[in-house]
Amino acid sequence: MHPDRALDYARAHRPRFVSELKQFLRFPSVSSQTERAGDVRRCANWLARHLQDIGLEQVRVIPTRGNPIVYATWRRAAGRPTLLIYGHYDVLPGEPLAQWRTPPFTPTVKGPDLYGRGASDDKGQLFCHVKALQCYLRTARALPINVKCLFEGEEEIGSAHLLPFVARNKHALRADAAVISDTRMLAPDRPAISYAQRGGLRAEVEVRGPGQELHSGTFGGAVLNPIQALCEIIAGLHDEHGRVTIPGFYLDVREWSEKERTYMARTGPSDAKILQDAKVEQEWGEAGYTLYERTTIRPALTLNGIVGGHYGPGVKGVIPMRAVAKLSFRLVPDQDPERISKLFREHIARITLPGVEASVRTLSPVQPALVDRNHPAVRTAGFAYKKGFGAFPVFLRSGGSIPVVNAFQESLGIPTVLMGFGLPDDRIHAPNEKFYLPNFYRAIDTSIWYLAAASSTFRRRSRAERAARLQKEWGA
Amino acid sequence: MHPDRALDYARAHRPRFVSELKQFLRFPSVSSQTERAGDVRRCANWLARHLQDIGLEQVRVIPTRGNPIVYATWRRAAGRPTLLIYGHYDVLPGEPLAQWRTPPFTPTVKGPDLYGRGASDDKGQLFCHVKALQCYLRTARALPINVKCLFEGEEEIGSAHLLPFVARNKHALRADAAVISDTRMLAPDRPAISYAQRGGLRAEVEVRGPGQELHSGTFGGAVLNPIQALCEIIAGLHDEHGRVTIPGFYLDVREWSEKERTYMARTGPSDAKILQDAKVEQEWGEAGYTLYERTTIRPALTLNGIVGGHYGPGVKGVIPMRAVAKLSFRLVPDQDPERISKLFREHIARITLPGVEASVRTLSPVQPALVDRNHPAVRTAGFAYKKGFGAFPVFLRSGGSIPVVNAFQESLGIPTVLMGFGLPDDRIHAPNEKFYLPNFYRAIDTSIWYLAAASSTFRRRSRAERAARLQKEWGA
Repeated sequence: MHPDRALDYARAHRPRFVSELKQFLRFPSVSSQTERAGDVRRCANWLARHLQDIGLEQVRVIPTRGNPIVYATWRRAAGRPTLLIYGHYDVLPGEPLAQWRTPPFTPTVKGPDLYGRGASDDKGQLFCHVKALQCYLRTARALPINVKCLFEGEEEIGSAHLLPFVARNKHALRADAAVISDTRMLAPDRPAISYAQRGGLRAEVEVRGPGQELHSGTFGGAVLNPIQALCEIIAGLHDEHGRVTIPGFYLDVREWSEKERTYMARTGPSDAKILQDAKVEQEWGEAGYTLYERTTIRPALTLNGIVGGHYGPGVKGVIPMRAVAKLSFRLVPDQDPERISKLFREHIARITLPGVEASVRTLSPVQPALVDRNHPAVRTAGFAYKKGFGAFPVFLRSGGSIPVVNAFQESLGIPTVLMGFGLPDDRIHAPNEKFYLPNFYRAIDTSIWYLAAASSTFRRRSRAERAARLQKEWGA
Repeated sequence: MHPDRALDYARAHRPRFVSELKQFLRFPSVSSQTERAGDVRRCANWLARHLQDIGLEQVRVIPTRGNPIVYATWRRAAGRPTLLIYGHYDVLPGEPLAQWRTPPFTPTVKGPDLYGRGASDDKGQLFCHVKALQCYLRTARALPINVKCLFEGEEEIGSAHLLPFVARNKHALRADAAVISDTRMLAPDRPAISYAQRGGLRAEVEVRGPGQELHSGTFGGAVLNPIQALCEIIAGLHDEHGRVTIPGFYLDVREWSEKERTYMARTGPSDAKILQDAKVEQEWGEAGYTLYERTTIRPALTLNGIVGGHYGPGVKGVIPMRAVAKLSFRLVPDQDPERISKLFREHIARITLPGVEASVRTLSPVQPALVDRNHPAVRTAGFAYKKGFGAFPVFLRSGGSIPVVNAFQESLGIPTVLMGFGLPDDRIHAPNEKFYLPNFYRAIDTSIWYLAAASSTFRRRSRAERAARLQKEWGA
């Protein structure tokens, strides 16, 4: 099935596709705020109706104990491979709202960009594949391969209900490979495939001091302040070389070969590029590693939030009762989140000063994940990028975590192709998130090419065989 | 002028006085919240009207650039001394509201206590003197001495406008002594006069990191986190012995004689009592000093609040742009707030890690203050307590700061008698603040006796002369 008509359809319907994406972005489907549960559900329902409208089958909104999973299939390509397309329709909160130039849930096109929470992470990227499917179904009334769509609503809070769902539905979700577009390219003309992700673990440390809020004049100097005690705990988590001080933390960290590190140095972003993307002037962290290495093959412990006492406008001379910090670990092969959780709890108990009590909560453990760069499903993605973006992708490691990649590997035994369409300046998780619309259009073309090529390349073949086949079929 | 009729009047009108105090407490006159400015103004107007109603003269609500000053006099006791009565009608915020058993601005009597923000600090204590004046004016239609009332609305935020007002109005405010009831007794039967207060200085430290909020997966490990940097700064402000590490911080701290420390040990609260009042199990702070000493003759640096990143419910994997801490210094003779401010700024600049920027704001400098325990105005207060509470007061040092005491000393050249009527468990500055009503009644009697005795004892006399005079006049 040649993709020409699907590509023509895509080209002809760009404004309409953008307008549909804007509808999708308008839902404040924030999974971390329970008061948004209704918006999350409405967003799931809208997405399901949309999948139905474009011709997918077995469309279902599957309830979980948390947010629903949207599922749809097209399985009429008998004898052809099956692709599992994953994405997430939940987003992070818009806060801090004051820093948005346009409201986070009022999607707005400015120049080549579409602004809004979720524009890139992940509604916009997920939508590229949905539109590619539509282009085939509207023109050929069929897809080149079998497809299963699995769109969840809890990725930003750790995919707590999707992971057991995948484990319970191994049979129904059976596929030859999975594709996820929830990562980024290096630049608009430099596509990238993420072949490794860090795992993760969230933690909350609460320090409790006096049994009541105290006047800091009356008691200042005689009572250990919980804010101070928490700060001392946090300050004690890194040494002056940027290394995490938790005993045993680095014990299971895999050391990579010089060959791999040379490959990374050649393909990955430079220190200068990473600092520029971060809008930071000075590097920080573990000596002996590039910034790309520090954010991919090395683990990290970062502070996400802290609060205690009187922090609003004005002054209030108090010694507060408690202070709380939120942290996240980013873990690498072969660290185990459960083991890190145990080490962390022991360490906090050890370093907490007498006079206060510290309690630790850990949640959302995610295993690190790796995909073989030479798997045909990955190679096919390379071909599709070349067609869609005019360039072969580089293979990158990613610092973040997509919990489901690990589940696909372990429960379904399939590799996941992380075809990123985002850009480094998309400001995901930050105010003024955007999606670069030329990437949206090219990503749809790329997905169309991917579906086309997958029908013949998915099974393992030699490089020569695969090249011959692509040459014959599409003139690549 | 014998106080019998005034005392009778006080006894007969207790329920009415409580009900008036409740009216006073109902105003949420929170000086640290700008949105409460209207309530603060309404509270000042109510207080002025009340002073007018009870027969004071020259009643004025004097505007400042901040909250108004309420002023009133009675100056018809020719040839008699003049007493300046100071108090503050502003209060701290009610927050955290969830911890109040009754709403902070719905004053509620439960058992012997009146609950509400400001019940003790300072509306309730201020009101004791107002009611004492009323008892004379309603019965004798005169006061035993001349009186000037000066009630401000910015004590809780550093008295920024009152202090220059006092300096500008030296002539109008001329008096022989000042009395302030904004401190505490040791127990209901153990009155106390505070003869020393710590000075103070507020500070805010803001640490700025990346130019935008960052994804903690993408950048975690390569970028210094402003929360972590702030925590390291804070952790670096004390050594492991509870001493402030700012170089030069202790240079000007006065060492007290063994005699003074023995007096303090005899009169002051024990370590156990201070810990019990604080609801804290373990002491903390500078070795070599009792807790009473640590909170009075030793300086302290306490954390009042901290905030940064995502601290609400749920998780958000971010590296924030900034984090802020609010601190307060409690200073002792002969530390100078301006010098401490300079040392603090230099220290923060020195210890801030490269990769982030720290800025420091200091405000509300207050000099420490001392009053001669043998001044006749102080001795007269001892007599009045004996009459009102049946016990002579102990002389205590106080850990907090009442900025105006220093101003009275420097601008007007008069001593201030700090006659506390609060109790250690009044929970000032905390949820469920209350005033013990038996103290309210006895404090009114005490103030009545003070006004009576002051008419003959205020000028410096020998101890024998003073005793003879008191014996003759009131049978003390």
